Amino acid sequence: MANYKLFLQYEGTRYQGWQRQSSTGNTIQGRLEALLEKMCGNPIQIHGSGRTDAGVHALAQVANVHMSTDLSCGGILEYMNRYLPEDIAVLSVEEVPERFHSRLNAKGKTYRYTVVASNLPHVFLRNYSHMVSEKLDVGAMRQAASLLCGTRDFKAFTSARRGKKSTVRTLEAIDIEQKEDVLTFTFRGDGFLYHMVRILMGTLLEVGCGQREPEEMTDIIKSGERAQAGALVPAKGLTLVEVRY
Amino acid sequence: MANYKLFLQYEGTRYQGWQRQSSTGNTIQGRLEALLEKMCGNPIQIHGSGRTDAGVHALAQVANVHMSTDLSCGGILEYMNRYLPEDIAVLSVEEVPERFHSRLNAKGKTYRYTVVASNLPHVFLRNYSHMVSEKLDVGAMRQAASLLCGTRDFKAFTSARRGKKSTVRTLEAIDIEQKEDVLTFTFRGDGFLYHMVRILMGTLLEVGCGQREPEEMTDIIKSGERAQAGALVPAKGLTLVEVRY
Repeated sequence: MANYKLFLQYEGTRYQGWQRQSSTGNTIQGRLEALLEKMCGNPIQIHGSGRTDAGVHALAQVANVHMSTDLSCGGILEYMNRYLPEDIAVLSVEEVPERFHSRLNAKGKTYRYTVVASNLPHVFLRNYSHMVSEKLDVGAMRQAASLLCGTRDFKAFTSARRGKKSTVRTLEAIDIEQKEDVLTFTFRGDGFLYHMVRILMGTLLEVGCGQREPEEMTDIIKSGERAQAGALVPAKGLTLVEVRY
Repeated sequence: MANYKLFLQYEGTRYQGWQRQSSTGNTIQGRLEALLEKMCGNPIQIHGSGRTDAGVHALAQVANVHMSTDLSCGGILEYMNRYLPEDIAVLSVEEVPERFHSRLNAKGKTYRYTVVASNLPHVFLRNYSHMVSEKLDVGAMRQAASLLCGTRDFKAFTSARRGKKSTVRTLEAIDIEQKEDVLTFTFRGDGFLYHMVRILMGTLLEVGCGQREPEEMTDIIKSGERAQAGALVPAKGLTLVEVRY
């Protein structure tokens, strides 16, 4: 029995997210486990660095799996890519120490959110972006973004029910890049709460449209109330870009 | 009756190319004409700047159409984007002089071909690129590309049957850009013969893999024989980027 670390790429469009739900749900985890069970001949559980929601994409998700196989790492890679559907790919497979856990050992993550600020459809980004027809004030969004960064209690920016778990996270940076009508928001932090990036993004867009002032960010954080923050934006604009260890 | 110039964007994956074939074929031209006929209430013929093959994409194809409608240009744009499938979009509509013809007046075109040079699948480029697992010698391909450029008889680089029409074209430039394992080839010329970009591309890839020497390009052109040039590469890597007037 060895522990393997996998780098995975997927387009989330067709899937009900990462997490296996039942034998009928079409999930990334479910697809991977079914394939590895066929490969190994016994039940397999794969651990992702986090659960991406339905429709969310991954450029390099990390997972680990304990299994025993005669195949080399290169052999596992080849086997998986031969049988996976074309919207899921394995980029690398390596053997790691037994105690490595893709979620528990993750030190940080980077997510990217893509917005097309246009009245016109964008054929090639249609599954990877959120369309906004209002003109966006990038300066105001940058100002709001800087107020959101830091080590803070992000309770207002999660859909998770109130529990005992800490909602304090360190948001290291939100970088906003503009290339013609395509805006790319890169969120880098030590960890993200359920729906956190999509609610931060919805709040920033409300600032960009002039519905809110950048200064309000401080009060939203202080309130700790979900209702004070902005709307949840669609999943399809979101991509998990990197997991750091 | 007015003449309208349309800028169109489409993903070719699901279509049997630009040109209408029969009432059953799923083509870009067929889709557009069916929609405009509904809009105008009479038969419509739309003229593209060129016929993209099945699977070929367009970032900005140009077409013109003579029709009479009460709608303004903005109204036509909105109507079309409301009813077109999500893999076809209209980027602009403008009224042009009666004699403007998208194909006959075109002065030049730019095509882009994307190659992923990797053993690993690329989920996000799978419909827009051609996978090559061999290591490619970019220097050799650049040398071959420079020998192909200029005003030449490209008879060896077309699948069109020998006819009376001239096969002389001016290939202004082939730019090759590399970003990690993604190679982008940009072909700029005054016009392209049937399959010309895909055969030029196949020939360049054979140079890149070391199966041919860059110097052979001159002899292939001189021969005028299709059999001397390289293989036809897959359509899905090709995108019409610009039409110049």
